Amino acid sequence: MMDSISETRNLLNIGDLSRTAIEEVLELTEAFREVSARPIPKVPALRGRTVANCFFEDSTRTRLSFEMAAKRLSADVVNFTAKGSSLSKGESIRDTVRTLCAMGAQGIICRHHSPGVATRIAGWVDVPVINAGDGSHEHPTQALLDVATVVQARGPMDDLNVVIVGDIDHSRVARSNVTAFNTMGANVTLCAPPTLLPPGVSTWPAAIAHELDDVLDKADVVYMLRMQRERIEADPVLPSIREYLDRYGLTTARARRFGSDTLVMHPGPMNRGVEIASEVPDLANSLVEAQVANGVAVRMAVLYLTMAGMQ
Amino acid sequence: MMDSISETRNLLNIGDLSRTAIEEVLELTEAFREVSARPIPKVPALRGRTVANCFFEDSTRTRLSFEMAAKRLSADVVNFTAKGSSLSKGESIRDTVRTLCAMGAQGIICRHHSPGVATRIAGWVDVPVINAGDGSHEHPTQALLDVATVVQARGPMDDLNVVIVGDIDHSRVARSNVTAFNTMGANVTLCAPPTLLPPGVSTWPAAIAHELDDVLDKADVVYMLRMQRERIEADPVLPSIREYLDRYGLTTARARRFGSDTLVMHPGPMNRGVEIASEVPDLANSLVEAQVANGVAVRMAVLYLTMAGMQ
Amino acid sequence: MMDSISETRNLLNIGDLSRTAIEEVLELTEAFREVSARPIPKVPALRGRTVANCFFEDSTRTRLSFEMAAKRLSADVVNFTAKGSSLSKGESIRDTVRTLCAMGAQGIICRHHSPGVATRIAGWVDVPVINAGDGSHEHPTQALLDVATVVQARGPMDDLNVVIVGDIDHSRVARSNVTAFNTMGANVTLCAPPTLLPPGVSTWPAAIAHELDDVLDKADVVYMLRMQRERIEADPVLPSIREYLDRYGLTTARARRFGSDTLVMHPGPMNRGVEIASEVPDLANSLVEAQVANGVAVRMAVLYLTMAGMQ
Repeated sequence: MMDSISETRNLLNIGDLSRTAIEEVLELTEAFREVSARPIPKVPALRGRTVANCFFEDSTRTRLSFEMAAKRLSADVVNFTAKGSSLSKGESIRDTVRTLCAMGAQGIICRHHSPGVATRIAGWVDVPVINAGDGSHEHPTQALLDVATVVQARGPMDDLNVVIVGDIDHSRVARSNVTAFNTMGANVTLCAPPTLLPPGVSTWPAAIAHELDDVLDKADVVYMLRMQRERIEADPVLPSIREYLDRYGLTTARARRFGSDTLVMHPGPMNRGVEIASEVPDLANSLVEAQVANGVAVRMAVLYLTMAGMQ
Repeated sequence: MMDSISETRNLLNIGDLSRTAIEEVLELTEAFREVSARPIPKVPALRGRTVANCFFEDSTRTRLSFEMAAKRLSADVVNFTAKGSSLSKGESIRDTVRTLCAMGAQGIICRHHSPGVATRIAGWVDVPVINAGDGSHEHPTQALLDVATVVQARGPMDDLNVVIVGDIDHSRVARSNVTAFNTMGANVTLCAPPTLLPPGVSTWPAAIAHELDDVLDKADVVYMLRMQRERIEADPVLPSIREYLDRYGLTTARARRFGSDTLVMHPGPMNRGVEIASEVPDLANSLVEAQVANGVAVRMAVLYLTMAGMQ
Repeated sequence: MMDSISETRNLLNIGDLSRTAIEEVLELTEAFREVSARPIPKVPALRGRTVANCFFEDSTRTRLSFEMAAKRLSADVVNFTAKGSSLSKGESIRDTVRTLCAMGAQGIICRHHSPGVATRIAGWVDVPVINAGDGSHEHPTQALLDVATVVQARGPMDDLNVVIVGDIDHSRVARSNVTAFNTMGANVTLCAPPTLLPPGVSTWPAAIAHELDDVLDKADVVYMLRMQRERIEADPVLPSIREYLDRYGLTTARARRFGSDTLVMHPGPMNRGVEIASEVPDLANSLVEAQVANGVAVRMAVLYLTMAGMQ
């Protein structure tokens, strides 16, 4: 565990970061949020540096967030996508990323559908590597932006009750967020039908609940996960979309029940009408857009901590 | 109707612009055409601002024109395309564009295959929105660049005779250009077989003709629309490609008949050999390349009027 | 034949360059390699200029190399790809590139699957054109980066023995490199099964060999070409992958046989385990990564020679 991302110059797993390391990110995030609010939201911190956005799996939203973060630091960004690339001609990922570095990439942001790829890439190259999501394993910048968003709204997370609701099993967000929230002192409860909990979940530092209505009342933060419509429709074990929304969805009735100081979060993209009622993300206590805005500020902080000052 | 695009900071429909508003664009376009002719064609007007190119429908040509315009104003550009995006994961357009704004996009350029999408987006976000084509409805920057091109070649458009030829029914260019040319004082004639005229065309401020040879002689500007080869080949009501070129195409014979001060225009991409004979776009009175060049200058003007000076 | 690329401001075929012209590129490449090694690897040589990367055929690797080169010279880069473009709507290549120039592209980098396209484009536009690969015909910047890499490692190429191994028939790299190596004074041997040699190869300025083991001993440089796994598997005339590696592959045993001053090269992307054993590209005498790094420096030199100082 490290007390600053700048120690390894990589961000691979959220569990590598101590509370001190996360607090360093939060402090920088606040500074970069201030930069982002300026009419000309740009600082020369990484001027002339080149960051490679390596998205082996499509994710326009996360790619654009990193791209905007890099550009606000005045870095140049090149976008590598798997489609039409040398990967499709049989090249290995190792050769692909080493090639990008030989061309002059001074930092690698990577997204891949397989767990552990970011860590393997960090072993292959000499430049900073940032994990932008590896399969259902980790999504550390998402966890950091979610912590930053709660702290911005509420102050320190100590003893806050956070409920994460939905498809825990397939969610890298759930995995990374449980770790980060826990490191920051919050009490986390996972709420899902048993079929959407991963094997071994009992060893996670989180309580388990199967009924949303049982846990909503004492929740300070209700964190809804995206439910893939296709998954619901394909899986006979899962309830129908209607049943799912009834039992695990954040309906308007539920959102009205809890007080205005209970925060609603969602990592996006949202399926309004599936896991969350259409009106709910637009209520006053919804942090959904603050999460997106903090995403750019947090990624600026992470790029700065990993890349600034390098030779 | 507004007298300056800077009033609403949006460009959604050409019909929202008074003659004064169009003339303001023309004046700025001339200034930016001068910038574009410099060895280093760049001004710092939008330095550090971020423009999001949101192309829900592919259009490389229009996207690049906006991208070049934004870069000449020193703005940063991020490209959003529907493919591989959160839209394909069930996110709504409203959430998509609000997410882009939360990330820091300070202007939205949007292209979509459905009429009215740009206007709806403008209702959802707080930043300027520019319509880069919505279905067969509107393409206001095309209309402005076409006016700028005629005015550059001929001076004020008052009393000029403009003939627009081809598939009026499916053409956003025809719709927007009839309005703009009319606002600038020109007389517009639409020339097409009845099957390619939209219902209600009789209420447009334009004369109708069914034979190109009847209207060519008094035309100051002959504006050819793209004819989709696929549409001709699929539709039994339409004539064959050969027949279409004979009757409605700008053949070399026709181009020779009218004087060298009759101007030829086409919005591109051209199907040489379908609606226009191969040699015609390269004749001296063709404005086709001037249209493309003015496209960048006009888009610089529109970006400047909507985005400069904002907080 | 020209003594400086700046004479025509195009780079179309490597055979157009005299030894003097290549040496000018090498000298500039060395200067730009020094720039690339700086913490902020950027010079203002092409500030405010716009380069269009026109990749009618996908090649992420080559596109990114040119994009990084252009950005290091402070140029703006726009990426044109055939997919979703006006080409797919029936526009000709000539109209496409002339449109890009009318928009303001001040240089065209083009890749196309058909031989000769770059040369035709150069006849259609008034701006510099750089051939980034046209079918199995030419890949002049690859040849220049390979010369730069050998010269960096070994000094002048005069009388060096270079063996190029593999699918000569389908390789634009082989065609361009034979010419360039020959111009620089090297002796080139092509090594391949007869079925992978092109008709007319006997007129090339190169010796022919059919057994790799016959020519390895006196080789100063062993240049392996990519073997397409699909081609091997589909073609009954060709040996199996295993047989191919045995007879024409750079196995570990072969790599150990020759001295540590025999250089190993490959244009990438590599099929480790097909034409080259997995470990070989990572040996000390492998120049594979130096080739990639020199690719960016050479392309900076070519962009500089063709575009700097233009009006």
